[in-house]
Amino acid sequence: MRTAYREQLSGLGARLADMCGLAAKAMDDATRALLEADLSLAEEVIAEQERIAVMGRQAEDTALKLLALQQPVAGDLRTVVCAIHIGADIERMGALAVHVASISRLRHPECALPDEVRASFAEMGKRAVLMAGIAREVLLSSDSEKASQMHDLDDAVDAEHRHLFTLLIDNKWQDGVCSAVDVALLGRYYERFADHAVEIGRRVVFEATGGLPDAKKLA
Amino acid sequence: MRTAYREQLSGLGARLADMCGLAAKAMDDATRALLEADLSLAEEVIAEQERIAVMGRQAEDTALKLLALQQPVAGDLRTVVCAIHIGADIERMGALAVHVASISRLRHPECALPDEVRASFAEMGKRAVLMAGIAREVLLSSDSEKASQMHDLDDAVDAEHRHLFTLLIDNKWQDGVCSAVDVALLGRYYERFADHAVEIGRRVVFEATGGLPDAKKLA
Repeated sequence: MRTAYREQLSGLGARLADMCGLAAKAMDDATRALLEADLSLAEEVIAEQERIAVMGRQAEDTALKLLALQQPVAGDLRTVVCAIHIGADIERMGALAVHVASISRLRHPECALPDEVRASFAEMGKRAVLMAGIAREVLLSSDSEKASQMHDLDDAVDAEHRHLFTLLIDNKWQDGVCSAVDVALLGRYYERFADHAVEIGRRVVFEATGGLPDAKKLA
Repeated sequence: MRTAYREQLSGLGARLADMCGLAAKAMDDATRALLEADLSLAEEVIAEQERIAVMGRQAEDTALKLLALQQPVAGDLRTVVCAIHIGADIERMGALAVHVASISRLRHPECALPDEVRASFAEMGKRAVLMAGIAREVLLSSDSEKASQMHDLDDAVDAEHRHLFTLLIDNKWQDGVCSAVDVALLGRYYERFADHAVEIGRRVVFEATGGLPDAKKLA
């Protein structure tokens, strides 16, 4: 019975890791679609979203079955409840990648990004995708050191996000209101995506160590 | 034993309803702070956020205890897992109210809103707060008819949100880039707040009826 439980639990972790891999790919593709004004890639990201949502529902079903049939307690119980939260985090990451792709689609054939912020979004995208990749590995390994690597990346995303806002509000923005609005929302999507990745790492480490997690960042 | 379980379960629902009431008040205050450039009210909203977070942690602890000690199955299990999701939704609503308050604080002593969008935000705020109030009642009553009242309100918030974007991107925006960015982000915060309220209603109805919930809106 306990062996079956362990197998189901690690199966659940593997499923969440797969979802996280899809969310990383979605943000990678969405970023390329954004930078290159690639309509078909943007539409692919939007179409793929349903896969993440379906996997999310399956993961939650597995978690419910684990709770009902194995009736875990203490640390095991917390692990399953963490998995439920993590599934919701990853679904949200997928939705944020879709938001990026949607802005890219909306502005096609134009590029939604003025030249002066392209490098910032390329950087934010690269780091956000890296973070989702690390979250995926942490889901498979529960490696707390790996999880802590996300903090520097998250700080870099936040710094880039602040830099964008400085550009937007310093009265020198030359690219018009519509583009400023796109840049502000896109910046927020990347920042939130990164926050969810950090949150996944935080939750996994919490369940692995049983220690108190750091306070959640209010973003 | 079962009676104790029912009591704990309805206690959990009552706690979530209290949290939801606090989130409604936070958004009501944040909207007033925004419309009236009221710094002390904005700071009050920001300071109160911690209370919602603490209640969220307590609600999750109660849910974990219910799972560990009562080992519910089937519908009861789903109710507890729903409560865990709902706690996360309400915490997010509180965070969104804080975002509104933070923009209001950042622009003080100016008002963050140009005159032409004041009425829109007053409307969105009123409806968002109403929705949180309905979500609170639904948490206490599981009344699916009440929950369905939220859809019209949510549609109205979405319509107002779209209206704001039309103003922002029609090349006639006269109030500068900084203000456009604020309005775009604020609009998004209200829209997301309303979405979470709908989601709470959807979850409660789902657990009350055991039926399939409507597809989640991708926002």
